[in-house]
Amino acid sequence: MIAKLYEMTELVIAPEDGAEDLIASDAPAVFVEPETHDEIKVRGFTSSDGYFIYRFLPLKAGVYEYRIVTDRISIKGACETEAADGSHHGPVRADGARLVYDDGSRFTSFGTTVYSMLHQSEEVFEETLRTLSRSPFNKVRLCLFPKHYPLCTNVPPCYPFAPLEGQKRRSFLPEDAPGPFDEPEARDDYWDTNNPDLGFWDMIDDRLTRLMDLGIQADLILFHPYDRWGFSNLSMEDNLRYLDYAVRRLAAYPNIWWSLSNEYDLTLSKTIEDWYTIEAFVAEKDPYHHMIGCHNWIALWDASRERTTHLSLQTRELWRVTEFMKKYRKPVMIDECKYEGNLQEDWGSLSGQEMVRSFWQVMVQGGYCTHGDTFYPEEGSEAIWWAHGGKIRGESVPRIAFLKDIADSLPGPIETVVESGLNQAVFFTGKETPEELNKMPAFLKQAWKSFRMMPDIERELFISKNITYHGHCGEDAFLFYLDDQCCIRTAIDLPEDRKYRIEVIDTWNMTRAIARTGATGGVQIELPGRPYMAILAIAE
Amino acid sequence: MIAKLYEMTELVIAPEDGAEDLIASDAPAVFVEPETHDEIKVRGFTSSDGYFIYRFLPLKAGVYEYRIVTDRISIKGACETEAADGSHHGPVRADGARLVYDDGSRFTSFGTTVYSMLHQSEEVFEETLRTLSRSPFNKVRLCLFPKHYPLCTNVPPCYPFAPLEGQKRRSFLPEDAPGPFDEPEARDDYWDTNNPDLGFWDMIDDRLTRLMDLGIQADLILFHPYDRWGFSNLSMEDNLRYLDYAVRRLAAYPNIWWSLSNEYDLTLSKTIEDWYTIEAFVAEKDPYHHMIGCHNWIALWDASRERTTHLSLQTRELWRVTEFMKKYRKPVMIDECKYEGNLQEDWGSLSGQEMVRSFWQVMVQGGYCTHGDTFYPEEGSEAIWWAHGGKIRGESVPRIAFLKDIADSLPGPIETVVESGLNQAVFFTGKETPEELNKMPAFLKQAWKSFRMMPDIERELFISKNITYHGHCGEDAFLFYLDDQCCIRTAIDLPEDRKYRIEVIDTWNMTRAIARTGATGGVQIELPGRPYMAILAIAE
Repeated sequence: MIAKLYEMTELVIAPEDGAEDLIASDAPAVFVEPETHDEIKVRGFTSSDGYFIYRFLPLKAGVYEYRIVTDRISIKGACETEAADGSHHGPVRADGARLVYDDGSRFTSFGTTVYSMLHQSEEVFEETLRTLSRSPFNKVRLCLFPKHYPLCTNVPPCYPFAPLEGQKRRSFLPEDAPGPFDEPEARDDYWDTNNPDLGFWDMIDDRLTRLMDLGIQADLILFHPYDRWGFSNLSMEDNLRYLDYAVRRLAAYPNIWWSLSNEYDLTLSKTIEDWYTIEAFVAEKDPYHHMIGCHNWIALWDASRERTTHLSLQTRELWRVTEFMKKYRKPVMIDECKYEGNLQEDWGSLSGQEMVRSFWQVMVQGGYCTHGDTFYPEEGSEAIWWAHGGKIRGESVPRIAFLKDIADSLPGPIETVVESGLNQAVFFTGKETPEELNKMPAFLKQAWKSFRMMPDIERELFISKNITYHGHCGEDAFLFYLDDQCCIRTAIDLPEDRKYRIEVIDTWNMTRAIARTGATGGVQIELPGRPYMAILAIAE
Repeated sequence: MIAKLYEMTELVIAPEDGAEDLIASDAPAVFVEPETHDEIKVRGFTSSDGYFIYRFLPLKAGVYEYRIVTDRISIKGACETEAADGSHHGPVRADGARLVYDDGSRFTSFGTTVYSMLHQSEEVFEETLRTLSRSPFNKVRLCLFPKHYPLCTNVPPCYPFAPLEGQKRRSFLPEDAPGPFDEPEARDDYWDTNNPDLGFWDMIDDRLTRLMDLGIQADLILFHPYDRWGFSNLSMEDNLRYLDYAVRRLAAYPNIWWSLSNEYDLTLSKTIEDWYTIEAFVAEKDPYHHMIGCHNWIALWDASRERTTHLSLQTRELWRVTEFMKKYRKPVMIDECKYEGNLQEDWGSLSGQEMVRSFWQVMVQGGYCTHGDTFYPEEGSEAIWWAHGGKIRGESVPRIAFLKDIADSLPGPIETVVESGLNQAVFFTGKETPEELNKMPAFLKQAWKSFRMMPDIERELFISKNITYHGHCGEDAFLFYLDDQCCIRTAIDLPEDRKYRIEVIDTWNMTRAIARTGATGGVQIELPGRPYMAILAIAE
């Protein structure tokens, strides 16, 4: 068996080789990693034609020995894994607050949101892929269960499970759906979670593969509350049976992430302990340790949990990326900061400018931002990018691509220049010693005194409105995002022992102009007096 | 003696009538109010030509008896006060969280900021008045002491005191000034606070009178830290002597407010107790009880203080107006929310759009917002509106005038519709009973549960980004400010037992269009998909 590093390979056991015995015994395939001799237990699943399939994702080049042993059969073999050709980098990992591929190369996430893309017609899905292929996006948030929500009510082509034997097929028409805040109906009497609908899972395979081929990470949302079928309201036994199948079948994709839920705290049917059970289950069953996050409505998920690899936030508190990076030392994904669109709802009517501004604010701090596009469908269509996919109608995407080019060109990961202005106040403890105070610049010392007069919450609120978005990559690059300031000049401070090329960037009009070369120390830069400007200083 | 209600009148004692004795004895003029017989003690001051002057502001129509009694003289008389002709309304007062004139009529403050306007050349001052007369502004924040600050360094024509006898006149050139965060030099050795420079005070009189004649409130800033002359750093004895003279001379203007300080917590030379001493002194010496506020840098002034009549805030936490109104039950003035301009500093480079947006956000909640204009001076000028006056260069002023027309047309004072969406979460205590919870709409109950999972501070931060700006005047009018939402429709809820005329307002392009008449209950309104729209529903 020959495999390629970081590419999924399948060990398919035919009926004549004992598939039936494996289906009955559920024996794992144990792969022994070259050099480390670590054992990787891979569990199989049944295909639609009676084969038993183990999907394996090699994370090391070299020869993996494998064995499958039951009371009745013993299969042994070797999987020779060829080194990657440079186009494959393996699953994305957290490296402190940074995202990197398994091979250590940088992954700068530029995400978008197409919640129900997996459940649309082939025509819509194809258009979605075309749109993605021409976009800057390398990650997409999407649901495994179909989604029911205002403006996303179409009937999915198939479901993850068959109904229980003897159940009459229900139509689940949108008009029969409960409201989003109704106590959900129990639906344990309908779905047979022991009986996955292989047509559904074949469709998921096909679509995840095509996303993978475009180099796009699939942030797979395992549960969500937007439901008219009862999938949000299964028993925990059913939840785990569903997860078990999903993990067996999908974990070997190099490009997936596990998102336990969208808006977990809006899910009326699950307690926080239920979510912890789900998290533990996924983490334990996934042999490849994909990213695990959980997306909130209002109450932030506890990102300090050991198995939670990153923050997957719904928030517009974008200035807090730095705080979260310092606190959790995990990647901070702003997975929902409202969407560009024209919807009635405030979460779906950001201007293009605000969407782009959000990306800049987050990126300059070293976080990762996610896009969404929510325009009422055009005449003759019912597709909205955020739900179904299709076309993107907003104005932000070319600007996000422009930003991505800049981000990709940076010499390393970026983080906030905390030494800039009142930003330093973010990290006041209130317990600074007189010596520490005396080392501060005078204005900061005075600010410290003022903060001591206020409750902590006032300090947090003050900071929310007075932060500056200045980032740096060590001393190799400095990126000053001037946000909505309309200044005609600004002053920046660069190290005095290096020389920098300075560019003035108009983040909305997508222009870059070299303002200075050989710059060093304190530099004054002329600006056009428009909002959304940035200054990039790169060491020469 | 004949006076007019709400207009300053002077009782001038000539040298031949005992002025010298009054100067020596400092006997007050005691005015006895008609009907109530309350005694108003008015203290006098010396004019440049040896007269002793009592300035009196009658707040009741009718006849005031007055007497001035010393060991050596006794002057008695009557002041007959004619009722106001409708153009004078008396000093502005706080009536709960509303501003009203003394006669009870509504005062809707639309403020601007010209800190050093009193200390400019006559030419610049005249231009400032011309600009004000063509503006929507009816209140201006201005300093009594001259101001020294970057971009505001010119030499004032005169100073409030003469130097001490024997002191050589100093030039106080800007280049000799200490930095804004330097420990200030003590200057008690220079100024003679017993010796007011009457030329200075005559100039102040002249200029306050001309502001009064334009119907503009002068929010007189008594102390501030932007200084190269030592006025921010006098002894407390000197401070009180200065205040004593200012109050004697200026308290009878109907259009003044006392602002104890600008950025009180940026003033290195005064403790919080010093500020309390100053507040008590002004409150006790002012017989007319003008408004008293104190403007902060970072730490909010304690607005619960009995003598503090209103909140005078520097903040961009504009959504908190409602919270402050409920907490303090005093008028909430957003006296500094950054300025429209093109300065390098973030506080001086708001776009016109952001300035106008701030006014709308504050006004719809029932607060009062203040404008400032900070563009680098044009070639050949050194005037910046925010410091010197002159011309306003930003784009916000016509839009603020447009808003003022709308505000003035409302049938009464406005306050936030707290029953709107997540706004209600502002007032969660966390101690709601199960019965109270069950009365909530389902989404709010779920939000309550989410908030219970979070520290209070997270709730505050969440609210900061999810508030809606919807105001109402009872059921007579509803004003929905849609802020930066780019929606193409919205739904509003109106009472079902009344009919409303609905206007769609473009707050930036200054258009008003009637969308519906006879509307009642839930109404859907079409919008253009641009930011900064508003909807006004007025009962027919």
